[in-house]
Amino acid sequence: MKPMGGFGIALVVSAISLAAYGQPERNPAPVADAEGHLRVPADYHANYHMLGAWAVAADRGQGSKELHVVFASPGTIDAYLRDGHFGDGSVLVKEVFETATGSMTTGTVSHAQTLKGWFVMVRDSKNSHPGNKLWGDGWGWSWFDAANPSKTTSTDYKVNCQPCHVPAKASEWIYVSGYPALRK
Amino acid sequence: MKPMGGFGIALVVSAISLAAYGQPERNPAPVADAEGHLRVPADYHANYHMLGAWAVAADRGQGSKELHVVFASPGTIDAYLRDGHFGDGSVLVKEVFETATGSMTTGTVSHAQTLKGWFVMVRDSKNSHPGNKLWGDGWGWSWFDAANPSKTTSTDYKVNCQPCHVPAKASEWIYVSGYPALRK
Repeated sequence: MKPMGGFGIALVVSAISLAAYGQPERNPAPVADAEGHLRVPADYHANYHMLGAWAVAADRGQGSKELHVVFASPGTIDAYLRDGHFGDGSVLVKEVFETATGSMTTGTVSHAQTLKGWFVMVRDSKNSHPGNKLWGDGWGWSWFDAANPSKTTSTDYKVNCQPCHVPAKASEWIYVSGYPALRK
Repeated sequence: MKPMGGFGIALVVSAISLAAYGQPERNPAPVADAEGHLRVPADYHANYHMLGAWAVAADRGQGSKELHVVFASPGTIDAYLRDGHFGDGSVLVKEVFETATGSMTTGTVSHAQTLKGWFVMVRDSKNSHPGNKLWGDGWGWSWFDAANPSKTTSTDYKVNCQPCHVPAKASEWIYVSGYPALRK
């Protein structure tokens, strides 16, 4: 039994060190429970990969009113490059920041000031939760206010989430052209 | 000896799992060699914390010409909140992206398109490299083109780096007002 025990410990160390260096970890933080209630995965800053960033222009004048930073779960990018689509279980987390804008040495500059919340999407091509109004068209969808990353305020993805994604329907509802890491 | 050996393995596992969950790790990737040559730390996406994001407005019309995303080494934010200044060894990494701008469902939106490179700064209040023109005024300073994260193209921080930071001199040359996480 002793050699087996030592081997077991070595395997544990190996799996954890991969996670520490940004490789897929074996036990990622949960993003959905059995009923399909989503939450912001607690480990996304430590274990996800930054996929891209967006600046939404101010309605009047110069500057940006919002900054968005998007993270993808471990393995998402590699699978997309290999298969040409998002693999089931892939998670996207988009941070949404309100900005403040001012004149700086490099010009008119807006910076992330306050986190408003997160958009979370989980790929699900198998329609796993047909009775849940936050799942459909190949994804689980939810918005989370900054104050509560574990309980969504969304009630129906077709009303709360999908309308802004209609122009990206052909690319699995994701604006992949904004994510150069997804291009071969 | 056997009990000691088991205890040693347990300590290793504990240190590595902390790193996997975004806590300070014991052996971060190097950012400077003994002579003070900086490099982009290989682990910053996995182990650093996102400190903030910036959008630089386009010269004409709407949209942003650059997006910047800033990361701080483990412990930097906690030390700043505790002491009111950056602790020696704190590392800041700023990704600089060129953008593409278009009309989207949320308005005029720019997204990170191409990584131009990184600004790296390392806090050094002790003037550790007095003969090195990339160290001084409390920091090591360097720019890295995207093609070479291990060799800077900067030759003199007073010419290549510091001029854009002059308005932030009173806050240790850092635009801390753009980083809400540094506010108590």
